[in-house]
Amino acid sequence: MTHLLIIGGSDAGISAALRAREVNPAVEVTVVVADRFPNYSICGLPFYLSGEIPDWHNLAHRKANDITREGINLLMDHTARAIDPAAKTVSVVDREGQSSQASYDKLVIGTGAVPASPAIAGLDLPGVFLLRTMADGFAVHEYLTAQEPESAVIVGAGYIGLEMADALTHRGLDVTVVEYFDSVLTTLDPALGAIVGAELQRHGVKVSTGVAVEAIEQQPGGTLAVNGSNHFHTRAGIVLVATGVRPEATLAASAGVQTGLRGAIQVSRTMETNLPDVYAAGDCVETWHHVLDRYVYLPLGSTAHKQGRVAGENTVGGHREFAGTLGTQAVKIFDLVAARTGLRDAEATEAGIDPLTVNLETWDHKAYYPGAHKLHVRITGDRRTGRLLGGQIVGHRSGEISKRVDVFATALFNDMAVDELNDVDLSYTPPLSSPWDPVQMSAQAWIKAQQS
Amino acid sequence: MTHLLIIGGSDAGISAALRAREVNPAVEVTVVVADRFPNYSICGLPFYLSGEIPDWHNLAHRKANDITREGINLLMDHTARAIDPAAKTVSVVDREGQSSQASYDKLVIGTGAVPASPAIAGLDLPGVFLLRTMADGFAVHEYLTAQEPESAVIVGAGYIGLEMADALTHRGLDVTVVEYFDSVLTTLDPALGAIVGAELQRHGVKVSTGVAVEAIEQQPGGTLAVNGSNHFHTRAGIVLVATGVRPEATLAASAGVQTGLRGAIQVSRTMETNLPDVYAAGDCVETWHHVLDRYVYLPLGSTAHKQGRVAGENTVGGHREFAGTLGTQAVKIFDLVAARTGLRDAEATEAGIDPLTVNLETWDHKAYYPGAHKLHVRITGDRRTGRLLGGQIVGHRSGEISKRVDVFATALFNDMAVDELNDVDLSYTPPLSSPWDPVQMSAQAWIKAQQS
Repeated sequence: MTHLLIIGGSDAGISAALRAREVNPAVEVTVVVADRFPNYSICGLPFYLSGEIPDWHNLAHRKANDITREGINLLMDHTARAIDPAAKTVSVVDREGQSSQASYDKLVIGTGAVPASPAIAGLDLPGVFLLRTMADGFAVHEYLTAQEPESAVIVGAGYIGLEMADALTHRGLDVTVVEYFDSVLTTLDPALGAIVGAELQRHGVKVSTGVAVEAIEQQPGGTLAVNGSNHFHTRAGIVLVATGVRPEATLAASAGVQTGLRGAIQVSRTMETNLPDVYAAGDCVETWHHVLDRYVYLPLGSTAHKQGRVAGENTVGGHREFAGTLGTQAVKIFDLVAARTGLRDAEATEAGIDPLTVNLETWDHKAYYPGAHKLHVRITGDRRTGRLLGGQIVGHRSGEISKRVDVFATALFNDMAVDELNDVDLSYTPPLSSPWDPVQMSAQAWIKAQQS
Repeated sequence: MTHLLIIGGSDAGISAALRAREVNPAVEVTVVVADRFPNYSICGLPFYLSGEIPDWHNLAHRKANDITREGINLLMDHTARAIDPAAKTVSVVDREGQSSQASYDKLVIGTGAVPASPAIAGLDLPGVFLLRTMADGFAVHEYLTAQEPESAVIVGAGYIGLEMADALTHRGLDVTVVEYFDSVLTTLDPALGAIVGAELQRHGVKVSTGVAVEAIEQQPGGTLAVNGSNHFHTRAGIVLVATGVRPEATLAASAGVQTGLRGAIQVSRTMETNLPDVYAAGDCVETWHHVLDRYVYLPLGSTAHKQGRVAGENTVGGHREFAGTLGTQAVKIFDLVAARTGLRDAEATEAGIDPLTVNLETWDHKAYYPGAHKLHVRITGDRRTGRLLGGQIVGHRSGEISKRVDVFATALFNDMAVDELNDVDLSYTPPLSSPWDPVQMSAQAWIKAQQS
């Protein structure tokens, strides 16, 4: 009987475990989980901290006993310390420091990512938090409850930073967001980032862009002073630092697993590392990008699930390949949804493509039907070949934006040309769309621009 | 200079006109419009009659002068009486009975559809209406306003019938829906139709299925008695008959244009009829079905737009092919959205395929985030080859259902296998979806069922 050992109990690890058992119910699966929270939705932490989800237990994608019921052994509160690829063993240590050896026939490494600690003085002060694990979430929650700060500074205006700006505003705090680049949510084009910035300000969030935070200092009375470039000074009762993550691949690298981009584990499309019978998946690996046709580092929960599923299937004899990320991302900030897939203009240019990007403002459904909102659509295609490269949409949360972006994503998956989008029989009813869906209207605007 | 003549000023005709001018600004285009309402959204009539759209002018996709500004001549209040394909002329007659000849180099026929008058006695009584044209809409509106009926019977529980049930309930009438088949909305599987039926009843609509309406009679005082099979008897102040449409192809057939299914005009994939330089598009033609790989009769506004665009492009030298319908349809009934694409189980069986259909009930987004609603997803695939054949979803209108069905549609357009859906990088954020979108969860349930 094959023994599958998995290091890491988050999205990639649990997906791999479930898929392996599904494909081959005879496989013995053990997952080494560093804490007591396997398969938790850390993407849900902002909504726990906002107060919208009163009970953190609900953040579990699955409860521990749902997982064990599938015949998966969970080794909780255990940390993997070393992999011996020759002996096919992993040393693990429990909370009391007791160590033991786990052997494997197949190993999946899903050690995830850790916050990229930026060069800011004062990160270890009380009231300053990074947000990554369930334990981080509990620490922030306890501080918010016990200290009742009235104001917050959030360093970093990416997805997590902006979700936390929404969450803490919802909780009643005065929030300031500080971003190093010149616009918020730089995964979107600046024109769309500006719309998101305006939404933040409409809800009372102060937004400072083009500021490098340099130091956080504790004032008498416990208030935190945050100082940055361009004479940025402000004070707050709590500071959250959300400036991105880096792969956690030290364990793998020590065992001789090859790493690459930003130190992430290099894997084949079948999610195998350079070591025999050792797979890796999730936020700790380089991710194949379908549109760019090369590896990138792009850690996302939805990708971790897919990679884990592929790795799990292959450990029990499957031959599945990870199809690749499309760079799809979505976020809700107050009443707005912002979503994207594929390449933006600048990303395409950087990849040596000659892109054309067209902006379209149109209604989410027939304007005569009540409740119509404007969508801001940006579509990018290859000017020479006409191939679709990417799409971005920002607008009101009722505009079915994320699944419209998924229409773009499904088109990208199939290497469609921009013009072919007009041939797809998309649904239409006046309360929900137009005879040409906004996705298609943007394709028609693109074709006009390409031909002019 | 080419002269393009178009018969019909609705979706197909105006799309053809606009596309021809877009591709070749030198082409001279004339559209013969039977009334004064070119390019009106007749799909919007229910929302005008509900009172949600106070001004019917807003139903125009484009105002007449938006169309003429594109260099298109509109011959309004003119009816085409005969086509002479040898002389390349069309006789038209205006409201005063004045006739004239219009010549063409290329002709597009977009004469649409007319209500299929069912075998019911009393269809010509005052207070009994069919709903197809703007004029029909005005007549119903006038009757509702002048007579203020307190109750309505709607014959036919298809899209229009159910939208009118919603609309008249919204207006304060007591509504009864009568349907010949055993469930409402028979374009969905009965299990999903039952959910729609329950939603109607929840909003006070009486639903009688399995009833063939036989006669409508006027009672003293003007009340209408509606009698049908299975001892069905009821009374109402207004009766709407919405039992489907048939193609309006008599003009074309008289000129020697070949017709087929249900009398619809036969066209090639380039939207050409058997007569040289004569094209046809929209509700009057047979429509290519991409999944069935054959022609069907399936009149829809979104399809008419696409076919019109293809015809228009080809009249000015293009070589575009209509890619085919996927059978995509969506409707909002009260707080529910019901949408479908591709083939249902029974449709696939009828086409000689061995289908497998799997039912999945799941949340539209992570259940821990407020506002989650259950989606009812049905996915159909080819049991032998694994090819995706269709998808249906019913659920709360906030569940991005129509665009989720469009993900299925885009997959069908690309002939994807069910299992490939799991490889697509669809968007995820807890307030809007799950790491595996419900579309993908249904694909995984299908794969499990196929393998068991």
